Amino acid sequence: MSDVRKNRIPVEIYGQQYMIVGTEPAEHIRTVAQLVDQKMREIKGKNATLDTSQLAVLTAVNAVNEYVKMKEQLEELKRNLNQ
Amino acid sequence: MSDVRKNRIPVEIYGQQYMIVGTEPAEHIRTVAQLVDQKMREIKGKNATLDTSQLAVLTAVNAVNEYVKMKEQLEELKRNLNQ
Repeated sequence: MSDVRKNRIPVEIYGQQYMIVGTEPAEHIRTVAQLVDQKMREIKGKNATLDTSQLAVLTAVNAVNEYVKMKEQLEELKRNLNQ
Repeated sequence: MSDVRKNRIPVEIYGQQYMIVGTEPAEHIRTVAQLVDQKMREIKGKNATLDTSQLAVLTAVNAVNEYVKMKEQLEELKRNLNQ
């Protein structure tokens, strides 16, 4: 038996329903879904010809890019602390 | 005239070509594209019925989730440093 309780949160992203499963609080999952929806609309605004699939891939590229950059920042901060 | 030079890097993600435009080094952009491709294949492995668009949206959700959690971690670390 696991102590980790998983939430199943229904969200809407770019007009489509998704069931997100995770251990994070429902509010966190809803915020993340809103950020993805917002980013897709922002990229669509600049590239009107993209279809939903291309839009979603470029949104994922954008999110992973920000993630990798922040991870590098965090690791640098930790390295400096250990010096 | 701007000093910020933008790179235009062709990448392949989940069998489709994309032109990624950014100020980051080409190598960074290629790594990010590989991570997105890898994550999409990983999610597809667990959810065979998802189409490319759903798959990319869930990959974006995943990346934004990791980004938000890491941002909280970084902010907490900075708060602790300032105390």
